[in-house]
Amino acid sequence: MRATPLLRTINPSATFKERVRRPGYFSKLAQPSDLAPLFKNGDYIGWSGFTGVGYPKQIPTAIADHIEANNLQANPDTKKKFNLFVGASVGPEVEDRWAALDMIARRYPHQVGKEVSKGINSGRIEFADKHLSMFPQDLTYGYYSLKKSPASHSHPHKPLDWAVVEATAITEEGWIVPGASIGATPEILQSADKIIIEVNTLVPNLEGLHDINQGFVPPHRQPYLITHPSDRIGLTSIPIDPDRVIAVTESKAPDNTGPNAPETPESRAIAAHLIQFLSEEVSLGRLPKNLLPLQSGIGNVANSIIGGLAEGPFEQVQVWTEVLQDTFIRFFETGKLEFATATSIRFSPEGFDHFFSNWEMYKDRLLLRSQQVANSPELIRRLGIIAMNTPLEVDIYGHANSTCALGSRMLNGLGGSADFLRNAKLSIMHTPSTRPTKNDPTGITCIVPFASHVDQTEHDLDIVVTEQGLADLRGLSPRERAPIIIEKCAHPDYKDLLNEYYDRSLHECLKRGAGHEPHMLRNAFKLYTNMLEHGTMKIKDWDP
Amino acid sequence: MRATPLLRTINPSATFKERVRRPGYFSKLAQPSDLAPLFKNGDYIGWSGFTGVGYPKQIPTAIADHIEANNLQANPDTKKKFNLFVGASVGPEVEDRWAALDMIARRYPHQVGKEVSKGINSGRIEFADKHLSMFPQDLTYGYYSLKKSPASHSHPHKPLDWAVVEATAITEEGWIVPGASIGATPEILQSADKIIIEVNTLVPNLEGLHDINQGFVPPHRQPYLITHPSDRIGLTSIPIDPDRVIAVTESKAPDNTGPNAPETPESRAIAAHLIQFLSEEVSLGRLPKNLLPLQSGIGNVANSIIGGLAEGPFEQVQVWTEVLQDTFIRFFETGKLEFATATSIRFSPEGFDHFFSNWEMYKDRLLLRSQQVANSPELIRRLGIIAMNTPLEVDIYGHANSTCALGSRMLNGLGGSADFLRNAKLSIMHTPSTRPTKNDPTGITCIVPFASHVDQTEHDLDIVVTEQGLADLRGLSPRERAPIIIEKCAHPDYKDLLNEYYDRSLHECLKRGAGHEPHMLRNAFKLYTNMLEHGTMKIKDWDP
Repeated sequence: MRATPLLRTINPSATFKERVRRPGYFSKLAQPSDLAPLFKNGDYIGWSGFTGVGYPKQIPTAIADHIEANNLQANPDTKKKFNLFVGASVGPEVEDRWAALDMIARRYPHQVGKEVSKGINSGRIEFADKHLSMFPQDLTYGYYSLKKSPASHSHPHKPLDWAVVEATAITEEGWIVPGASIGATPEILQSADKIIIEVNTLVPNLEGLHDINQGFVPPHRQPYLITHPSDRIGLTSIPIDPDRVIAVTESKAPDNTGPNAPETPESRAIAAHLIQFLSEEVSLGRLPKNLLPLQSGIGNVANSIIGGLAEGPFEQVQVWTEVLQDTFIRFFETGKLEFATATSIRFSPEGFDHFFSNWEMYKDRLLLRSQQVANSPELIRRLGIIAMNTPLEVDIYGHANSTCALGSRMLNGLGGSADFLRNAKLSIMHTPSTRPTKNDPTGITCIVPFASHVDQTEHDLDIVVTEQGLADLRGLSPRERAPIIIEKCAHPDYKDLLNEYYDRSLHECLKRGAGHEPHMLRNAFKLYTNMLEHGTMKIKDWDP
Repeated sequence: MRATPLLRTINPSATFKERVRRPGYFSKLAQPSDLAPLFKNGDYIGWSGFTGVGYPKQIPTAIADHIEANNLQANPDTKKKFNLFVGASVGPEVEDRWAALDMIARRYPHQVGKEVSKGINSGRIEFADKHLSMFPQDLTYGYYSLKKSPASHSHPHKPLDWAVVEATAITEEGWIVPGASIGATPEILQSADKIIIEVNTLVPNLEGLHDINQGFVPPHRQPYLITHPSDRIGLTSIPIDPDRVIAVTESKAPDNTGPNAPETPESRAIAAHLIQFLSEEVSLGRLPKNLLPLQSGIGNVANSIIGGLAEGPFEQVQVWTEVLQDTFIRFFETGKLEFATATSIRFSPEGFDHFFSNWEMYKDRLLLRSQQVANSPELIRRLGIIAMNTPLEVDIYGHANSTCALGSRMLNGLGGSADFLRNAKLSIMHTPSTRPTKNDPTGITCIVPFASHVDQTEHDLDIVVTEQGLADLRGLSPRERAPIIIEKCAHPDYKDLLNEYYDRSLHECLKRGAGHEPHMLRNAFKLYTNMLEHGTMKIKDWDP
């Protein structure tokens, strides 16, 4: 299926003419507003983008404009809701706007934005978070389009109707050089019937930054022959079939990244505990002097850790992670970070300015990969990654909740946390010990008796650290873990409550010969029900 | 450290002389009873063995005999408790006897036996279950011996004091040809200060059955260059340093495997649902005609599935699994199973007789690997395994409990279930919809509102199947999953209760803008508290 020819004359910039090296694509130049009406209610759409970087801006905006201008959502007969698939989150000006206009029927597998999460939690948007390493493969397996198209040998369908992707250049073959993220873009392109490319001429041509390996599906999948973060196994652009490209546009819209989360005394205390622990592991011979490749999440604790490492005792450090934030710039500049690889660079606008101006210095010390590779269990385990992520809460046995507040309200999604924590050599979760509520500055304890939602199990955590201290859980049984987590990590306001929960659970469970992982199930969620009723987790007693 | 010379003269059998091709080992021939007193209170001991196959019998028995004969456990000054590490479970005549004599301080990472689980649940044995792919690497990392020996560059210690392993032959180099399991034996040997080998001359020499790859630790770990279940990447024996071998014994004790679990009408119904589903996937082009390599667990449902496949529509099937049971013999003999690889062969005594008598037929269609490789996420994901395992319970959103009854009482441990389910192309859990209690034949529902312990998360399951039916969860959001799991999988006795839980949770959570994964936390564990009080999960109502 091909779109109708595009009629309006468009004059691209000189930069565009230089960047687009496939002459055939010039005849596909189009105005976003002409393309917008082509998107039909119920369409399956994939976008490039990851953590708000490298996503398409023009087409999504044009579709929203078209819908708004024609007041399509007011009438059930004209209303359009789409199934939207992106590697991770994109800029709020497109994703959140779509959600506010009720244009999203389904959104997988990760999102950031008030309107999107409102849509999910109010029942208007179907959302399933999925390990970021698995999302692209499940897409190519057809698992997200089971209802769309009952594929068969004789009548194959692509999982997606559309791929809308941003490029910073296009090769002679018509292949795509992405922006500062790769994410699931290769698989989204591979899975789509029709492709629209937004060539962003504001961002520099990032050719050479990417390593794009060919994706096979079983039984033809091959080993990833990577044994060091700097190893390359692929191309510098994403191969596509040029015949599936129905339109190309020129874009000058910047990635809409905000500033990074500021550090706090708590985040610095957590980072200090962690760096001390890593130093001890080195001196005991359990880690090499330059550590092992690091993964760090997003947020102020991650910033403090990377900031601490930039000043820290380790040299020639390697990073294998999902996303790079601004503090990595300092880490590079102190000379302690030797090489970093990720699937996305999420710098602030100032960070990007610095990065692009110093491109020559960075280009040999940095590599982007697809999220299927960056988050691959194969590589995380082989390289022996040190993984560090923030949960909402951790329970006294080491189960962690990364996604659902009070068990039910989705925040952003699982992301790659479980890809890394399950497979890392050192699986570390860091969190403040409490969070404030409206009426209590320590109204929420992040160390709980039983996690209200489990995304990471007790089998996957080695280290828990809060501003209070660090609990080393390696090799410990559940009965050994609970007292240590409470002692080292819980806030003083909650220590007695948690110890009493554990002691009483132990007593009751041993009595009935069920004391492996002691619980009082009748009370396991009492902190949450108190929170819902009284706005704090500080209960009076365990049993009335 | 070396043991004292052994004084008694021992005459080994002719088979022993033929099997042990390292002349130096003859001077290390010893009586088990002479070795028993060398094991000190608090020692860290590793055994070979996996699912009750290929474990040492003589030395463990001699140690128990020695302790019993000298009544050592009666006196705190003479009492011996050991830290015991084995790839998975071993025969009850050794493991359970040790537990009954209170000789086990710590037992990782999997066990089978009434006395062992009694010890764990009564607080006498520290137990932590761990993904079977990770246990061997965590052992070599020193994570299980953090307290034993603060290792340092200047003063290294091995994680284990002893490795006691069974062999069916010994090579010229002094290397070990295992029995019908590999499990964690290579890493246990690599981690031990002193090695004792029991050469079993009752079992045939199984040289050629094993594929032993060299194990590196990060940053030196290498890709597993396997793209097909029959690919070999290693040696046929386990390399060791002969100087660490302090004694060799001759054993004629058989593996103490019982009969396999018999099939039931329920297990056959589950298998039928599954085989129908797989047939549909083939006809829709989402699976090749010969499927993808299969993993199946242990138990009657696994037996029914493999039995069903032996009669089923698929040819040239490959198996990549943890353990082979008797039904695989039939699968081989119908010619439909082309090749199988695992880390252990757990046949019944009759199954082993048949297997050993037909060794020539089997030896080119079967390969054993270490559990670090057999359960490796790298290979499970690359090969696109179809994984099938039995949980204790699954909740309405797809979280599963594989280990702890009523949240606290340990049964056997996690095993490799999460290695396979997390990384498979198709992650399938099968369970009867209910189990009986003393006073109610359907007193326990295996489909629950909130799993009382979470080992597998909602992010890891594709398919849930009971004798009632099959729920395909691929691509579904939590709100879409719950009604389908209840409709297809729950027992009629519980459908209304579960639907009411879901509907009320949805209503309450949507009202407060928290409806992604709806729960009533105050009621989430009510079925269990009712079970503890009244012996059935059938509650009268959700709120009094």
